[in-house]
Amino acid sequence: MSQESTLANLGESESLKRTIGRLIQGEYTLVGPGDDAAVVRASDGRYVVTTDTMIEGHDFRLDWSTGFDLGFKAIASNVADVAAMGAKPTALVVAIALPGTTQISWLEDFADGLNAAIKELAPGAEVVGGDIASAEQVFVSVTAHGDLEGREPVLRSGANVGDVLAVAGTLGRAAAGLSLLQSDTDAKSAYDDLVAIQKRPQPPVASGVSAAIAGATAMLDISDGLARDAHRIARASGVSIEINSKDLQGFEAGVEQAAMRLGVSAADWVRYGGEDHSLLATFPASVQLPREFKIIGKVVEQSDKLVTLDGLELQQNGWDSIRG
Amino acid sequence: MSQESTLANLGESESLKRTIGRLIQGEYTLVGPGDDAAVVRASDGRYVVTTDTMIEGHDFRLDWSTGFDLGFKAIASNVADVAAMGAKPTALVVAIALPGTTQISWLEDFADGLNAAIKELAPGAEVVGGDIASAEQVFVSVTAHGDLEGREPVLRSGANVGDVLAVAGTLGRAAAGLSLLQSDTDAKSAYDDLVAIQKRPQPPVASGVSAAIAGATAMLDISDGLARDAHRIARASGVSIEINSKDLQGFEAGVEQAAMRLGVSAADWVRYGGEDHSLLATFPASVQLPREFKIIGKVVEQSDKLVTLDGLELQQNGWDSIRG
Repeated sequence: MSQESTLANLGESESLKRTIGRLIQGEYTLVGPGDDAAVVRASDGRYVVTTDTMIEGHDFRLDWSTGFDLGFKAIASNVADVAAMGAKPTALVVAIALPGTTQISWLEDFADGLNAAIKELAPGAEVVGGDIASAEQVFVSVTAHGDLEGREPVLRSGANVGDVLAVAGTLGRAAAGLSLLQSDTDAKSAYDDLVAIQKRPQPPVASGVSAAIAGATAMLDISDGLARDAHRIARASGVSIEINSKDLQGFEAGVEQAAMRLGVSAADWVRYGGEDHSLLATFPASVQLPREFKIIGKVVEQSDKLVTLDGLELQQNGWDSIRG
Repeated sequence: MSQESTLANLGESESLKRTIGRLIQGEYTLVGPGDDAAVVRASDGRYVVTTDTMIEGHDFRLDWSTGFDLGFKAIASNVADVAAMGAKPTALVVAIALPGTTQISWLEDFADGLNAAIKELAPGAEVVGGDIASAEQVFVSVTAHGDLEGREPVLRSGANVGDVLAVAGTLGRAAAGLSLLQSDTDAKSAYDDLVAIQKRPQPPVASGVSAAIAGATAMLDISDGLARDAHRIARASGVSIEINSKDLQGFEAGVEQAAMRLGVSAADWVRYGGEDHSLLATFPASVQLPREFKIIGKVVEQSDKLVTLDGLELQQNGWDSIRG
C-alpha cells in the first residue's frame, strides 16, 4: 500500500482516467465518458431514468463489502428500478465520493464490480459518465437509464381488481444476509450464499421486460420489503392486496435454516426484508405469466386494510432510508 | 425549531412527499416523480446526460450557503454541462444525503432553490426523480439531461487551427466570491454581488444552444478555471491555444476592486478561478459569433506549450475535485 497510489496523490484526472479506462462499452452510447456530458440513444424517443444512493455506515460497511461488492450493488439496485418500469437498462452515470487516502486499487476494484454487474444483469448498458470527489464518508450515487422499446411503462398505479399478484426473484435472502453479517457467530460462512445476495444483489432484470410484454398492469422492485412495497402498489392503484402465507412458504424454506441458526423468524425476513430487488407485479388473471413469476396473492376492492396476509392486516414495516 | 419536524422524525416517505410537492413541472416529462423511475421525452432519439456532485466541507459550507443556495448551485453547475454540449436542459434527478436531525424547512428551502435555478437557467426542465438519505456529511449529486434538438453535440475535440477562442459569461467572479467568503474582513458585504455568484452561479445556459447553432467547433463549461479548461480543449483537439491578456482585461476590471481590497491578484482569479461555469468555445474565424461571446484568443498548430498567454506558457493551475 504505497502513498503514491492514493487518490489524493494521483489527483482527479488521473484517478478518473484509470477508472474509466477499465469500463466496458455499451450498445446505446453515442458519446461516452470524457466530455462535459455523454450522448445516449433513445430509440423510441423516450427514456426511463432513476437514481439511488448508498452511504457508508447506513447502506454498507467497508469492513463487510469490498470495492467490487459495492460497485456491483450500485448497478444492481439501480437497474432493478429500470426493470420495474418494463424497460431495458442502457446507460448509467456513477458519482462516488471517498477519502483522498483511498488506494487507487480500491477504486479499480469498484470499477470491476460495475462491469461485472453490467455484464450479468444489464448486458449492452454502459457507464457513460461519472464523478469522483473527496469526502470523509463514502457515498455512491448512481443514475440509471432504460429503453422502453416502444412499450408503455408499467407504473405502480395500474393494478386492477381481479389481477393476480406475483413475484419474480427471491424474498428475504438479502435480509438474511444482513442479519448474518450483523451476527457474531460463524453462521455467516455457513450461509455465504445469503451473505452474497446482500452484498451483490441479483435482481431478475430481464423479467421486467417479460412482465411488460406479458401485460403486467403494475410493477415495482422490492427494495424496502414485500409489506411496504405491496402497500405502495395498493395505495397508487386505489386497491387492496391479499397475500396468502402458503404462497410465501417456498421463500421461507430458502432462509429457514439460517433463521433457526440465528433464532429469528424466517417469515419476517420474507415479509419485511428489503434489498432483494425482486420484482412485484400484478397481471390480469387471464394472462400466462412469464415463468419466473410466482403468484402470491390477488388484487381486491380497496378496504381499510390495504394489504392483508391470510385476511389479517400486514403491517407496513420495512426499511426507511432516513430512519433506517 | 421543533424536534417533530426533523427528517428522522418525518421519515423518508413524508420528507420526499413534502419536497416533491414543491417542485415545478416541466415540458419534457412523460412520467414524473413517484414511481420506480421517471419517463422523459427525447425528441430526436438521443439525450445528453451528465452528473456532478457537491460535498459539504469540500464544495460548500453550511455556514456560508443556505439550503436555497445549495439547491440553486446544484442545478446551475449541472445545466452548464448540458449547455456545453449545445443542448437544452430538459430533466434532472437529484440525490441528497443529510443528517436526520436536519429540519424539513431546510430541505424545503433546498427544493425552492432547485426551482429558482430551473426557472431562471433551464425553463421547461423538471426534477423528475430523486433520493433522500441519511448521512453525517451533506452530499448532493445531480444528474442532468438535455435535448440536442437534432443538432450534433459540440465536443471538446473539434477545435481547428485558425478558429477563434471565445467566452460567454463571467471569469474570476466565483473565485473572488470564494476568497471574500474565506476572508475575515467585512469586504464580503461590500462585494455581495461576487459572493452571490459563488453561492448561486449564473452560467449562460442559452448561449450553449446559440453557440452550437452558430457553428462552434468545440465547447466546455469553465468549472475548474480558464487555464485548466483551455488545456482540456487543446489536448482533446490536438491543437494549441493562444490567449491574449488584453482580452482578459475586461474580466479583470470586474473583480479589480475586490482583489485590491484583499491584496490579491485579479488576473489570477480570471485565469485560474473556477465555478463561474461560463462557456469556453472555439468557432471558425469566418463565423458571426452570438453576441454573448467575447473573443479572447485563437487556435494554432499544436506545440509543446498547449496554452499560452501572450506567448508564455499558461500553467494548468486550477481546481482538482479530489486534491482541492
